[in-house]
Amino acid sequence: MTPKITRFLAEQQPATPCLVVDLDVVETHFHALHHSMPEAKIYYAIKANPAPAILNRLVALGSCFDAASIAEIRMCLDAGATPDRISYGNTLKKPEWICEAYDLGIRLFVFDSIEELEKLGQHAPGARVFCRLAVENEGADWPLSRKFGTTLKHARALMLHARDLGLKPYGLSFHVGSQQTGVAAYDHAITKAAALYHDLRAQGVDLGMLNLGGGFPTHYRENVPSVQDFADTIHASLTTNFPDDAPEILLEPGRYMVGQSGVVSSEVILVSRRGGAASDPRWVYLDIGRFGGLAETEGEAIRYTFRTSRDAEEGTRSPCVVAGPSCDGVDIMYEKNRITMPDSLTCGDRIEILATGAYVSTYCSVGFNGFPPLTEYYI
Amino acid sequence: MTPKITRFLAEQQPATPCLVVDLDVVETHFHALHHSMPEAKIYYAIKANPAPAILNRLVALGSCFDAASIAEIRMCLDAGATPDRISYGNTLKKPEWICEAYDLGIRLFVFDSIEELEKLGQHAPGARVFCRLAVENEGADWPLSRKFGTTLKHARALMLHARDLGLKPYGLSFHVGSQQTGVAAYDHAITKAAALYHDLRAQGVDLGMLNLGGGFPTHYRENVPSVQDFADTIHASLTTNFPDDAPEILLEPGRYMVGQSGVVSSEVILVSRRGGAASDPRWVYLDIGRFGGLAETEGEAIRYTFRTSRDAEEGTRSPCVVAGPSCDGVDIMYEKNRITMPDSLTCGDRIEILATGAYVSTYCSVGFNGFPPLTEYYI
Repeated sequence: MTPKITRFLAEQQPATPCLVVDLDVVETHFHALHHSMPEAKIYYAIKANPAPAILNRLVALGSCFDAASIAEIRMCLDAGATPDRISYGNTLKKPEWICEAYDLGIRLFVFDSIEELEKLGQHAPGARVFCRLAVENEGADWPLSRKFGTTLKHARALMLHARDLGLKPYGLSFHVGSQQTGVAAYDHAITKAAALYHDLRAQGVDLGMLNLGGGFPTHYRENVPSVQDFADTIHASLTTNFPDDAPEILLEPGRYMVGQSGVVSSEVILVSRRGGAASDPRWVYLDIGRFGGLAETEGEAIRYTFRTSRDAEEGTRSPCVVAGPSCDGVDIMYEKNRITMPDSLTCGDRIEILATGAYVSTYCSVGFNGFPPLTEYYI
Repeated sequence: MTPKITRFLAEQQPATPCLVVDLDVVETHFHALHHSMPEAKIYYAIKANPAPAILNRLVALGSCFDAASIAEIRMCLDAGATPDRISYGNTLKKPEWICEAYDLGIRLFVFDSIEELEKLGQHAPGARVFCRLAVENEGADWPLSRKFGTTLKHARALMLHARDLGLKPYGLSFHVGSQQTGVAAYDHAITKAAALYHDLRAQGVDLGMLNLGGGFPTHYRENVPSVQDFADTIHASLTTNFPDDAPEILLEPGRYMVGQSGVVSSEVILVSRRGGAASDPRWVYLDIGRFGGLAETEGEAIRYTFRTSRDAEEGTRSPCVVAGPSCDGVDIMYEKNRITMPDSLTCGDRIEILATGAYVSTYCSVGFNGFPPLTEYYI
């Protein structure tokens, strides 16, 4: 938690639950990634947090943008990004969405199937297209592999076909999975994509671009490799796989860029051992849960760090089950991976949940159980 | 799908995705439940669908309401319900929420822990309170047992304590789990609660109320017992367990009351076999998914029925994986329980998802991937 957020919470005492994002942390992460991989173009994955304040800051820094929908494209344009800095990075697009994006000036589109490629040929004539490959997601806490991407063999046929459809076959992409903690995943994926890249060149299709997707992790509870560790592996792999001339490299960081920037401030509604016995598990119920924005605690996949207003006190601590405020039985965040908290914790105490800048504000439900969406502050 | 909804969709051709609810179906279900259990007071679980049109209709029918939050209490009051028809049925309440509810005239509160009971004693003097017991949720597709409810032994101590705190120990409640398809679950739970009920009477605490919770199922893909089947079991169990004088019975139906009333109209974005081979699984991507309202497809727990605009055509059919429109890898609705659809299905085709009146509109995210919340029509 940054001094700026600490001060904001102390001075403003905002009603809970709320999300407070320090925009300087976003900027720091942009610079760190750019410093580690200066040759790469950074396409911020807007879906991680589309707040105008973040988009404005990234536009000013020179970032490009990976949009999942027409609404996200419009958000980038509203923030001042020119269309050439925006990639329509969702493989799932209605024809009218492609038309609208094209009318807005977007000329970079992804696909992973013949049907989507043909839609692009029809509605985005002359646009640059890249094909998403399916790669292993081993090591990722939030895998993305089953739903997206095609095989090397099929991608080859599609890229050859793209030209016939009047499109510019521009590159290949993959995604090693979100919150990827193994640097080797990038080497494996680059090696796989490079084989097709060279094969296509031999067929007369000179792509020129390789999109490494996102996946760079945020530091939650466990240590993760630094972005420099990833950059070193990626550089070594690019040197090996493209000994003569490396393609243009695109990155699509989302979680990495904004995860550390945010803190959720919440309040304890109830602490109880429901069975009444000292041996019963201690449950801590907060005023935010899986349907208030912390959706990535599903399956306890993303494991946030908790700070309580009693952490500085002396006294015993013990593991707690942590759950949300709704009447829903699945609104439990951590039961297997319990959170150790002071035994003095009680109703009304504040709890700060760290590194919640990514994938929190937008996962939030419109009003499940009558609870309003999360209030957000960008400072 | 009712003729009214069919006509609405045909005539209005609303943009997809949207939810269309036939209010007459809600009324039919209210009457059916009331007819099967005329002695029971029906407390509609607002969380299933808090649309003003539904609350207005149920107020007119004489329903009572089970609220999960202050916002839901206010929705009921706005719809014309008097405070004596509202139960604050969430075991998780901040002190200020209890105060606000009390100020609004609410005098019926649930609890399942000593901490919550003491909050009620302090902030809701003289209110009627009921204690939620933990019971088996076997047979439920959406279990609720781990997060809520206490033991018989502890409930006994709490109920004796309630009197000392200036509260009216009024009843016991349980929840056999949502979408409960086994009638015996109610018999087991009633038998368990009855033992404590009689025990407390012997201690001089005459409760007078038993809240059977919700759980009555909606017909999705599989057949489920009728509400009359449940009523028969419940009546037999009450006769056995309360041979002399039965307590007042409360029911908290949510899913049962509104599930069948709604249809989601959606559109196919893409149909593809991503690997390009005929042996690859066929994926159907819709413009609604887990984050657009169909959250209960998590773990494929709730299995909806799909109708496509090509169902009347001749031709072959085959099973499909069904997924949502977002870039999120977990936004897959059915992969194990595939949906058989016409092989001619393609981008732009309409798909209606039946029995989506409950737990859809409010689970919807505020804007994940830039997709707006579901549009709702109440007719």
